[in-house]
Amino acid sequence: MHIAFDADDTLWHNESVFSLTCERFAELLADHCEAGELDNKLIETEQRNLRLYGYGVKGFTLSMLETALEVSAHQIDPANIQAILDAGKAMLEHPIELLPGVKNAVIDLAAQHPLMIITKGDLFDQESKIARSGLSDLFAIIEVVSEKNPDTYRRILDRHDIAAERFVMVGNSVKSDILPVVAIGGNAVHVPYATTWVLDRVAHRGARGEGFWQIEHMSELPAVLDQIAALGWA
Amino acid sequence: MHIAFDADDTLWHNESVFSLTCERFAELLADHCEAGELDNKLIETEQRNLRLYGYGVKGFTLSMLETALEVSAHQIDPANIQAILDAGKAMLEHPIELLPGVKNAVIDLAAQHPLMIITKGDLFDQESKIARSGLSDLFAIIEVVSEKNPDTYRRILDRHDIAAERFVMVGNSVKSDILPVVAIGGNAVHVPYATTWVLDRVAHRGARGEGFWQIEHMSELPAVLDQIAALGWA
Repeated sequence: MHIAFDADDTLWHNESVFSLTCERFAELLADHCEAGELDNKLIETEQRNLRLYGYGVKGFTLSMLETALEVSAHQIDPANIQAILDAGKAMLEHPIELLPGVKNAVIDLAAQHPLMIITKGDLFDQESKIARSGLSDLFAIIEVVSEKNPDTYRRILDRHDIAAERFVMVGNSVKSDILPVVAIGGNAVHVPYATTWVLDRVAHRGARGEGFWQIEHMSELPAVLDQIAALGWA
Repeated sequence: MHIAFDADDTLWHNESVFSLTCERFAELLADHCEAGELDNKLIETEQRNLRLYGYGVKGFTLSMLETALEVSAHQIDPANIQAILDAGKAMLEHPIELLPGVKNAVIDLAAQHPLMIITKGDLFDQESKIARSGLSDLFAIIEVVSEKNPDTYRRILDRHDIAAERFVMVGNSVKSDILPVVAIGGNAVHVPYATTWVLDRVAHRGARGEGFWQIEHMSELPAVLDQIAALGWA
């Protein structure tokens, strides 16, 4: 079976880098806007710009700048514009910190299966992160896509001649990594990034035909894959 | 044979959109910097940031902002920061204007050969431009890459099981579309974007073994491809 991993917040921390940047952004705009309202304004700007910028750090930086101009009614000190540009660059240079259990799981699985990365976002930034992760040699196929929907997955599987039943996607996002894969008849293992809410520690399969499993930690992945294989699903 | 096209400045105008934006940028910074010097500063900034931003409009916009802050010693009016952000968005929304002869050449060739697009830059923006071009259905394979070097082309040909001798790349950039393709034993047709310098109007093959042709206009492409095929090269 082919096993594909999402990258951001599945193989390495990403959301935490965004959060740190948002804190820095709130400090810079503290004279103009309260942190909670700033967050909301930034999300509004990002959503408005998604059609033009897509996902990724560069678009996020441009949306921070636009938000800063808006909430300050163009009264922002240009030195703070520079600080926002710098914060964006710091995100692009941020060291890659693998999530717990990822390195061992990927090394073990690479010895048995062809591994893939399927990640959404900025091509250049994603390739740079994969290279810096030190894991790139373990992945036979790397695909950076602009959106993860059923068509995206179908196109990738067609291109590499992989049957959906023999494909397992591992990722943290229900919307991007789980639902579209289940929709085309593939198998999906959900590894939530933040595990603050209550989860069943035991890997489980959803209703038959759904092709859905959930684990709390990457170290549980090999056992789930064995289970999937034993059930003859992939 | 598989025929691949570069996109920006091969299928449609792109450089002209950058030039218009640079003129607008010079107007906005006219109080702080003379146009020629501003151009040089912008190129320096872009080169410095290439490692972090890669190619594309979003990185270019961020480099314009950084240059504006630098040449104005942070004295720029924030309203002009907004104007630069708007200029970047205008680039992303700019209508796609096909180059002369492209539409007919692509329609004719698509009936006889599998066509590809191999383009460098921002994934999201490139996909958006391909969709807006109205030509996307005519291309069997679309590849957006972060860099065009021999390895990139080798990887793409391997992935699609195409022999280099049966591959023809058509593009305007000697560095990106011609040299790396010739280096891996493929065939390359150069269509310079700006034809102000003197060109031999007649398609010609370089020294044998170089796999290089040059045309002035896309309408000459079918004849060159016939020539390549007749010579048994692809």
